[in-house]
Amino acid sequence: MNWTEHFASRVSYIKPSTIREILKLTQKSDIISFAGGLPAPYLFPVERLKEASVKVLDEQGSQALQYGTTEGYTPLREWVSSRIPGTTVDHVQIVSGSQQGLDLIAKLLLNPGDRVLVTAPTYMGALRAFDAYEVDYVMVDVDDKGMIPVSLEQALKENPKMIYAIPNFDNPTGICMSLERRQMLVNLAAKYNVPIYEDDPYGELRFEGDTLPSLYNLAPDIVIYAGTFSKIVVPGFRLGWLVADPELLTVVARAKQAADLHTATFVQMIAYEISKDGFMDEQIDRVRAYYKNQRGLMLKALEKNFPEDCHWTRPKGGMFLWVTLPKGSNSLEMLTEAVKHKVAYVPGEPFYAKGGGENTFRLSYSIATPEQIDEGMENLGKVIREHSKIEELV
Amino acid sequence: MNWTEHFASRVSYIKPSTIREILKLTQKSDIISFAGGLPAPYLFPVERLKEASVKVLDEQGSQALQYGTTEGYTPLREWVSSRIPGTTVDHVQIVSGSQQGLDLIAKLLLNPGDRVLVTAPTYMGALRAFDAYEVDYVMVDVDDKGMIPVSLEQALKENPKMIYAIPNFDNPTGICMSLERRQMLVNLAAKYNVPIYEDDPYGELRFEGDTLPSLYNLAPDIVIYAGTFSKIVVPGFRLGWLVADPELLTVVARAKQAADLHTATFVQMIAYEISKDGFMDEQIDRVRAYYKNQRGLMLKALEKNFPEDCHWTRPKGGMFLWVTLPKGSNSLEMLTEAVKHKVAYVPGEPFYAKGGGENTFRLSYSIATPEQIDEGMENLGKVIREHSKIEELV
Repeated sequence: MNWTEHFASRVSYIKPSTIREILKLTQKSDIISFAGGLPAPYLFPVERLKEASVKVLDEQGSQALQYGTTEGYTPLREWVSSRIPGTTVDHVQIVSGSQQGLDLIAKLLLNPGDRVLVTAPTYMGALRAFDAYEVDYVMVDVDDKGMIPVSLEQALKENPKMIYAIPNFDNPTGICMSLERRQMLVNLAAKYNVPIYEDDPYGELRFEGDTLPSLYNLAPDIVIYAGTFSKIVVPGFRLGWLVADPELLTVVARAKQAADLHTATFVQMIAYEISKDGFMDEQIDRVRAYYKNQRGLMLKALEKNFPEDCHWTRPKGGMFLWVTLPKGSNSLEMLTEAVKHKVAYVPGEPFYAKGGGENTFRLSYSIATPEQIDEGMENLGKVIREHSKIEELV
Repeated sequence: MNWTEHFASRVSYIKPSTIREILKLTQKSDIISFAGGLPAPYLFPVERLKEASVKVLDEQGSQALQYGTTEGYTPLREWVSSRIPGTTVDHVQIVSGSQQGLDLIAKLLLNPGDRVLVTAPTYMGALRAFDAYEVDYVMVDVDDKGMIPVSLEQALKENPKMIYAIPNFDNPTGICMSLERRQMLVNLAAKYNVPIYEDDPYGELRFEGDTLPSLYNLAPDIVIYAGTFSKIVVPGFRLGWLVADPELLTVVARAKQAADLHTATFVQMIAYEISKDGFMDEQIDRVRAYYKNQRGLMLKALEKNFPEDCHWTRPKGGMFLWVTLPKGSNSLEMLTEAVKHKVAYVPGEPFYAKGGGENTFRLSYSIATPEQIDEGMENLGKVIREHSKIEELV
């Protein structure tokens, strides 16, 4: 069968990821990769999860292994709700990783041709989730405080159907949106009557400064908030949650039931088991301290090794920082050279919904050892200098 | 925010399930329910899963809790492939329960307005998955051998985009499609160039007779096969698989990556752990023997208690049987009476994509005790007799 001729029209929007193919090359064991956004496995609370798995199976095996409700395991929903002021269990929908939140909300809100307002750059996985619904994008420029007001208001005039934002330590830039900008964003969104999808995988990974209110805190009526266990506990459970207006969540649950019935009961119950007695806060402290140290090492290595005409973000949390090379540089072309020098990153261009960012790239400091950070940034510094010379010759 | 005015047009197809509301009434503890399709928890291999969980976390914790590949855990894909002749690991995509298979394939193959060919009746969950893609249906009549040839060919002339079939002990009727009909189905599908989605959750639950070739075995080029651990091991893992042309699966993986990145690594590795050493065949034998006995009890109780003008299927496998009341009966109206008599079932009408089946209902014999089967069918027999009298008076 020639499957291509049987495809729905949306398949033309579900493109192969060229970057994914490139990154496969970087998975060789002798390459020091700053490309992936993998959490550090040293932080996985393996013993605790083992105890919890055994306990759940011993005490509630029949329930943990049976079909469950689409909305999610009630005690886990209550735990999520207990951490977000002004919410009840009815404000929480468990999802199969926060990626599923993107898919479900896109399914409910986006018609073909609708526009989604996104920052330039933004999380690639969100673009892929939205793409499947045959949408277009409006890009908003950012500075080190987040979305730039003028650019945002201009974008809102293009009649977007939804705003996608990662206010805390975003992927890919590591930028944290200031309180002022948050307030501005929800005010403008309300003015233009556009719902906001607030993706918050990194909010708990704050290294310094005070926690800022989430967009959901500021404007619960118009915001759909997405959280996840992936960055604070483990990603291999595929466990996240949406927090939103219960009326909206009733329809989300219908869509989720059609999509996968419900999220695995077993992992929901284990996650609840390790969360309920305050262990989660200890775990978050541990994770935060670890990534803070990693970020410090990375910034030091960048100062030492990168040429003066390079710029990079100085994230106050999260797992990523964002490098801007001099204009005219091409980080995608440079990657081939980098891989020859046994170091890898993610070129910036795929993070732009409508192109741009050829002279940018993302570095993750989540899993490299201190030695790898030193060696990797030393090599990458050399590669950048070589690349600049070639650019000048051209 | 008034969410309704922000919804995409497809939301009008994602309807609330009236039946789900009704069934909530039947979940009171004093009601003997034959409504749900829950596997019997006595069959869950809890100890084995506990051992496997501990082993996976002890030996491969970092991998089991980390992000994994979208295609699924390779050894598990190999295990699936080893059970299906003519396939390799590239023919297997792991999904988050076979329900996700329905959603992903619908996403790739169905445009708004496209028609899906389904049996009347068919699995309600499949209709809900397809509905979200704004489709229409063509219904095919069935007898005790499956799709009726004349009806099938007539339906194919209405230009369906996909055929949905559950050849083995289907939900809701328990009917097993004969070999002749299977051959006819794949031949006609090939002639009309229509792909088939073969849903096979119950194939391993055969009580008697020889295993028949799957549609995928007969015509691998045009069939997408879906299997699951839900009915043979546990549903609470949300673990299933698609088997199809690797070229198609490349695109399925892209869609799945956008939908939930990948299925939980942890449960995939546990499932592999209990599958790899032949335990699965012991488990399947145990499950099969148990449901065979349950079916026997149910058929006996029906013979004893139901009036002569009722008919029901005599399934050779699976978890369901299908009752047809005399014409003019209404199983939905009768349910209120049944619940008063402390017994519940699922009315037939929601299993029909385009209406019908008002005088039918589904009984599941999967979890009731022998005493409950006797008492429940005695009560239900009385309810049916009462209902017939009322119908005659009207």
